[in-house]
Amino acid sequence: MTRAAVLGAGSWGTAFAKILADAGCDVTVWARRPAVAAAIREQRTNPDYLPALKLPPGVTATTDARAAIRGAELVVLAVPSQTLRGNLADWSSAIGPDATLISLMKGIELGTTKRMSQVIAEAAHVPDHRVVVVSGPNLAAEIAAEQPAATVVACPDTTRAEQVQKAITTRYLRPYTNDDVIGCELGGAVKNVIALAYGMATALGFGDNTRAMVITRGLAETARLGVALGADPLTFAGLAGLGDLVGTCSSPLSRNRTFGEHLGRGETIEQAQAATRQTAEGVKSCLAIRDLAHRHGVEMPITEQVERVCHEGLDPRIAVGALMGRSVKPE
Amino acid sequence: MTRAAVLGAGSWGTAFAKILADAGCDVTVWARRPAVAAAIREQRTNPDYLPALKLPPGVTATTDARAAIRGAELVVLAVPSQTLRGNLADWSSAIGPDATLISLMKGIELGTTKRMSQVIAEAAHVPDHRVVVVSGPNLAAEIAAEQPAATVVACPDTTRAEQVQKAITTRYLRPYTNDDVIGCELGGAVKNVIALAYGMATALGFGDNTRAMVITRGLAETARLGVALGADPLTFAGLAGLGDLVGTCSSPLSRNRTFGEHLGRGETIEQAQAATRQTAEGVKSCLAIRDLAHRHGVEMPITEQVERVCHEGLDPRIAVGALMGRSVKPE
Repeated sequence: MTRAAVLGAGSWGTAFAKILADAGCDVTVWARRPAVAAAIREQRTNPDYLPALKLPPGVTATTDARAAIRGAELVVLAVPSQTLRGNLADWSSAIGPDATLISLMKGIELGTTKRMSQVIAEAAHVPDHRVVVVSGPNLAAEIAAEQPAATVVACPDTTRAEQVQKAITTRYLRPYTNDDVIGCELGGAVKNVIALAYGMATALGFGDNTRAMVITRGLAETARLGVALGADPLTFAGLAGLGDLVGTCSSPLSRNRTFGEHLGRGETIEQAQAATRQTAEGVKSCLAIRDLAHRHGVEMPITEQVERVCHEGLDPRIAVGALMGRSVKPE
Repeated sequence: MTRAAVLGAGSWGTAFAKILADAGCDVTVWARRPAVAAAIREQRTNPDYLPALKLPPGVTATTDARAAIRGAELVVLAVPSQTLRGNLADWSSAIGPDATLISLMKGIELGTTKRMSQVIAEAAHVPDHRVVVVSGPNLAAEIAAEQPAATVVACPDTTRAEQVQKAITTRYLRPYTNDDVIGCELGGAVKNVIALAYGMATALGFGDNTRAMVITRGLAETARLGVALGADPLTFAGLAGLGDLVGTCSSPLSRNRTFGEHLGRGETIEQAQAATRQTAEGVKSCLAIRDLAHRHGVEMPITEQVERVCHEGLDPRIAVGALMGRSVKPE
């Protein structure tokens, strides 16, 4: 039986533990807070994040991350993007010499502008081919309810990708392998920024034409950046690109879309933060993504306008006008 | 001033006449019914299709198609897909020797399985490079309300595409040129079939993960067919592929999505027709598209299941199960 450790007991980490157990793995979840670990261990629930989910018997939990990691063939990382490097500094020596590290995180490290798999390889001292990225349209609450879904398992090493694919194939989840790690990670990170724009357009009263344009042109600029960084442009037409973007933009539960709606109604970033009691990931990552784009000479007009709305106080109405007023060109 | 004839006074034909006039063209709309032509000419409205739209002064209307066509540099075809060939038999001799023919139609001719631009070239006796396809996420009611939108102008002749691009660029519409006619037309035709599947999934109670999967895998099978027919796979990630598909699936006004919802609720095709008082385009075209796929050896599992639900009485719940139960594979 495959042994897996899931580091992080947020909603996606918890739902992923269910997937692994349903697919036949023996799973230990690490939770930072003792009460969460106890609830998972004793009541098989995570009341804070997925109260409706009853975890299967194959899942246990601990607050001792190194104990969870020791002996695990699959080490699943589901911690906040900006704490990952610090966590791995504490954990890396417990990771087995052939363990596979799986990233569920969708962000860019501030300052370094590195993707999560790059941070993992560096901070855990493992080669790229042992790091697998799982990304796709996977709202945790729907996975918990066993609604049919698909996802992408990306790794330069096809054999390892296929091992992870087998370890997470269930009746309700259909994983596809892909060797384009860069494309899958960029799709996941930039979609948060585009979802902010989608939320703004929604709040401004624009309909399905405008919003379909935001999604399509948003994906086009994501693909331009991806190609400059070495990704396969076709990845962006797949589940980790288009799929994740459409899922996030369509869901009224999406944090980034909701945050964008607050901005679109004319609220300041502070008002939007107060109303949603958090900062959406895209608000931070639009800075790192804009920096990456500038460094590689890539035009990303939607990201640029989102950054100006979020960090320079630009009126979202003026941002839309700026996007429409650009010179016409080939697609 | 560019002279344009718009053949067909449905909602998209009427909205397109507005676009052309707003961009500075002199436009004559052909309407089959005298009352519609009179309303456009005298009240500047089309009460049946777009009652809220006030057409600009540059638009007039007639019931004499050949008179509208004579002298027009742009001949815009916006008639039902299955009547196009018959209409052109009557009209072709009035078309000027260098006129550009613009297709707004999204269908496949039953029997021949030909795309609309192929039917136009054959039935109007014009070379391919004089036929331009306009396709994208362009719900007519939103265009009429001047909501920001984008579209694709596709033609093998770049100069001609750029002429049409100029003739339809307005404050609210941003056209992009593309030379991949096959890809743009297939995107528009297959999206109706995928929107049926999306509607079924919606009615079955599936959430945003499942629906994002339908869109993404639907686009993937569209692209597979497209590549087999000579299209550029990247076209499907653009406005005429992804954009149109997302716009159609997201809109509760979409005929194909709505029809799919009726089927998803367990209605027969006859009950769905009675409830919606029409047959959705995708119900017919799924047959032609399935035939095209078989002939080219392309796997189109969603189209296949939609065809079985529409024409063989398969339970949509079983169709979803069949899609999820396929063997896992690379993306």
